[in-house]
Amino acid sequence: MDSAVIPLRHGGLSLVQTTDFFYPLVEDPYMMGRIACANVLSDLYAMGITECDNMLMLLSVSQKMNEKDRERVMPLMIRGFRDAAEEGGTSVTGGQTVINPWIIVGGVASVVCQPNEFIMPDGAVPGDVLVLTKPLGTRVAVNAYLWIDQPEKWNKIKLVVTKEEVIEAYQEAMFSMATLNRTAAGLMHKYQAHAATDVTGFGLLGHANNLARQQQNEVAFVIHNLPIIAKMAAISKACGNLFNLLQGTSAETSGGLLVCLPREQAAKFCSEMKNLSSGAGGQGAVGGAWIIGIVEKGDRHARIIDKPRIIEVPPRGSQAANQENSSTSPDPSVS
Amino acid sequence: MDSAVIPLRHGGLSLVQTTDFFYPLVEDPYMMGRIACANVLSDLYAMGITECDNMLMLLSVSQKMNEKDRERVMPLMIRGFRDAAEEGGTSVTGGQTVINPWIIVGGVASVVCQPNEFIMPDGAVPGDVLVLTKPLGTRVAVNAYLWIDQPEKWNKIKLVVTKEEVIEAYQEAMFSMATLNRTAAGLMHKYQAHAATDVTGFGLLGHANNLARQQQNEVAFVIHNLPIIAKMAAISKACGNLFNLLQGTSAETSGGLLVCLPREQAAKFCSEMKNLSSGAGGQGAVGGAWIIGIVEKGDRHARIIDKPRIIEVPPRGSQAANQENSSTSPDPSVS
Repeated sequence: MDSAVIPLRHGGLSLVQTTDFFYPLVEDPYMMGRIACANVLSDLYAMGITECDNMLMLLSVSQKMNEKDRERVMPLMIRGFRDAAEEGGTSVTGGQTVINPWIIVGGVASVVCQPNEFIMPDGAVPGDVLVLTKPLGTRVAVNAYLWIDQPEKWNKIKLVVTKEEVIEAYQEAMFSMATLNRTAAGLMHKYQAHAATDVTGFGLLGHANNLARQQQNEVAFVIHNLPIIAKMAAISKACGNLFNLLQGTSAETSGGLLVCLPREQAAKFCSEMKNLSSGAGGQGAVGGAWIIGIVEKGDRHARIIDKPRIIEVPPRGSQAANQENSSTSPDPSVS
Repeated sequence: MDSAVIPLRHGGLSLVQTTDFFYPLVEDPYMMGRIACANVLSDLYAMGITECDNMLMLLSVSQKMNEKDRERVMPLMIRGFRDAAEEGGTSVTGGQTVINPWIIVGGVASVVCQPNEFIMPDGAVPGDVLVLTKPLGTRVAVNAYLWIDQPEKWNKIKLVVTKEEVIEAYQEAMFSMATLNRTAAGLMHKYQAHAATDVTGFGLLGHANNLARQQQNEVAFVIHNLPIIAKMAAISKACGNLFNLLQGTSAETSGGLLVCLPREQAAKFCSEMKNLSSGAGGQGAVGGAWIIGIVEKGDRHARIIDKPRIIEVPPRGSQAANQENSSTSPDPSVS
């Protein structure tokens, strides 16, 4: 499970709690703070929990930074973390900072819930539809961005992508990682989701397998579609399938929710995500939603079909994104 | 405050939560795990909370260790952490491990409480008595132990202490740091403590000052007695007052509780701590208790008098400890 659920001594309540910390992977310290916070909260959202009672921040300040850099970087990171916590309806109370060779940023999210506030991730049934709420490819995007300044790496991919496209993809990845999965968590209740998890270090297939293993029913997850930040599939292929993106095991940071929904609810879930994302807050505040597969009878494993359809997700703000809103692409073959 | 207290949406309950992590300071990985856990729980105990609903473990495995050392050390550290959590009546559910240049170990302790389960640390009144539940000097002991193999350091202290005494002091420090402040937390309720904190990185005086600042009444804390692991005062003096131990600002790890008790309750508190510590579990499981000062009218500061009485606390199991049980030494001048 993505969070620990601890029954309390008080009237049917449970403490739900999760922690995560890691090393900066984007240049912008403010965005890094937001991403770290979104990543911690995501474990609650994966259980359909939309509230968080408290966030502790865990920070390690690098001893290798000079004082000026430290004073410039750390307050921005903390600010980003706090802003994302506020967007999640919680605040940062408490935490701990240490000095360490590397910068580390993370947190602990805790909430006390009534039983109806969370959805145990074990109720998938054959016939359900799998929905993913953020595109894949964040790791490829972050790496490709670093390669712009490394000629021998860049040469491998320059035939399939332009620098502008890599920069746009990097920014899309950054905004996507910083997006809270909170809206998706709320819609899980409205559309009676049967189970969910969030996609992070083990990649889509890794987390789909973990989720499949936990199911009460004998089910298998079959993934037909891979929504991927535009051009990242091409980069991965050009590098001999870099990070195994197309096999579904490329690590994501603060990825989307993978949700099992009743077949008749999935399109409505996607459509409401789409409407919310094209509204005031825009996709930045909500994420997208793509139907990516189905739940069959099976032995509690997940697999990606032989030639999955790649859904190229254009960066927000790009020409392509303005022409067609592709945040929802229900596949007629499954919906 | 030592812990964050967050009012919940459910019937008067509060979430009380704290986190701490740091680097190993004793050689024994199992004891290090116990100390890390005791140190985290101590923030709850300082508020008179004796229960803990969940503990998350935070661990960073050093990339500099070879695989064999890692496999030898990390399981022991985790085991020590879990054993201490169990002694605290809780279990470790969840957590996060990362790779990092340094080993880091810590945790997050969370509990959901009714209002009568915790004691806000702001109720000291003039006439109260200050009690400390572990001796000072852990940092001096840990450092002196390292000096045994550093001739130029050892030469500074060899006239005041023997190697055997340093080894005994180191072991005493290790056991003391691994001791849970849970018994003291329980007795805070029985004897109507008015406020408490735990003594850690800022030393006795630093934490006494922090506690004094939070008081509702205009009070000052005056410290007359310093219970110190035997010989550590002499070592500190021989090194030109090493770490400012006698000024009360030498850092402690997982130190005792500093408790403000009504005058008529303090001796009983100490006496019960003494009885419990000489019982089945022994001092190891409980700690000691020394009356160290008084609460006066004042401007919310703490101070140590000019020539405080040094109470030499013999290591448990030593000759001296067997001859006189000194875990309670109420000073007739203040009790």
